[in-house]
Amino acid sequence: MTLLNELITLNADYAAAIDDDRLEDWPSFFTEKCFYRITTAQNHARGLPAGLVYADTRQMLVDRVLSLRKANIYERQAYRHLIGLPRVESEDNGIVRARTSFAVLRIMRTGETEIFASGNFLDELARVDDQLLLQRRDVICDSQRIDTLLALPL
Amino acid sequence: MTLLNELITLNADYAAAIDDDRLEDWPSFFTEKCFYRITTAQNHARGLPAGLVYADTRQMLVDRVLSLRKANIYERQAYRHLIGLPRVESEDNGIVRARTSFAVLRIMRTGETEIFASGNFLDELARVDDQLLLQRRDVICDSQRIDTLLALPL
Amino acid sequence: MTLLNELITLNADYAAAIDDDRLEDWPSFFTEKCFYRITTAQNHARGLPAGLVYADTRQMLVDRVLSLRKANIYERQAYRHLIGLPRVESEDNGIVRARTSFAVLRIMRTGETEIFASGNFLDELARVDDQLLLQRRDVICDSQRIDTLLALPL
Repeated sequence: MTLLNELITLNADYAAAIDDDRLEDWPSFFTEKCFYRITTAQNHARGLPAGLVYADTRQMLVDRVLSLRKANIYERQAYRHLIGLPRVESEDNGIVRARTSFAVLRIMRTGETEIFASGNFLDELARVDDQLLLQRRDVICDSQRIDTLLALPL
Repeated sequence: MTLLNELITLNADYAAAIDDDRLEDWPSFFTEKCFYRITTAQNHARGLPAGLVYADTRQMLVDRVLSLRKANIYERQAYRHLIGLPRVESEDNGIVRARTSFAVLRIMRTGETEIFASGNFLDELARVDDQLLLQRRDVICDSQRIDTLLALPL
Repeated sequence: MTLLNELITLNADYAAAIDDDRLEDWPSFFTEKCFYRITTAQNHARGLPAGLVYADTRQMLVDRVLSLRKANIYERQAYRHLIGLPRVESEDNGIVRARTSFAVLRIMRTGETEIFASGNFLDELARVDDQLLLQRRDVICDSQRIDTLLALPL
């Protein structure tokens, strides 16, 4: 499989884990020591480090899923990721850098569908046991409005 | 061509047939004996067999296009499929199982554009004369609202 | 890289140049003598030649970016392209014909996100110094409403 096809598959699987409500599978796309952040384009451009969501180990992602399950917010709505075509930026010493556009639709229990978020995944990936894993994913959201709505992983 | 690229091509061609208003081409993506169904995620999760649209031969799909043409509903609006990245689940004895997210925009004659549907294609594909065809496509719509609006194939 | 993967990469890079506000990179996806047009599906179906935007050299695209920068309209909003799966139609004498669906979200400074445009790229591509470039891109927008809103390249 080409690197591009690997990235297509990784992103499609990642999105499906969230959209199919298999949130427990979501941390498995990351390396154990990792970096995951959700922030806005404005904050990212200003170089502000703190994001809306922040984790630097896979365990923190596991914990986040546990609290989402407890809060039970997630169950009242469904999401549908629309993942763009991945762009490979570089591949050096086994580290792949890639960027991928995304949009997420939110489907409320009432049936209404709205655009929940859009943005860019800025990724660093490493190969662990022959599998491509995210060692860093910066989720850069286009809109400033995202913070008040945020519940699920993006 | 890799299987992934074949699935990308099949899904892009399928969507284009509908979006370009070449509905008569739509049944040609299926095997003669086939299964096509549109249902909601809720009904699918409950295991309810009946969908909003149901066909089990290619001829039934042909008939559906004929009635759409007669009803002439289709002409008053246009659709734009946004097809996600296909996920290959398995390939056994020539049968491919794959899942692909989608969203469909509807453009009204007035120019307004709205999200018409989103969901997941659950597919079984077979190779007939060297061509990959759908022998089963379950269209699982995220929203419960879809039924009252449904006109075109998804 | 397969032709399909080349088209995926070209389209993803093209979209990123616009979405990342690197508009100055946008003309570099075209051959020097080229054809770029934005029009509506209705006008296209009627065979009307004039589009909403029209250019037949790369220099005209460069000039367009300069006026967008001066007008400064672009800065008040952000865009997010969702590019569909490319469809290769033919490859003859080094000329590739392809079609690709797209949707563009517009994110206002207030944070609101709306569907700005959707449609089809009808492309002719040529290989120049081993790189695939657009020698013609017809942007066929689904909606009639696009004209009054148009600011950025699509």
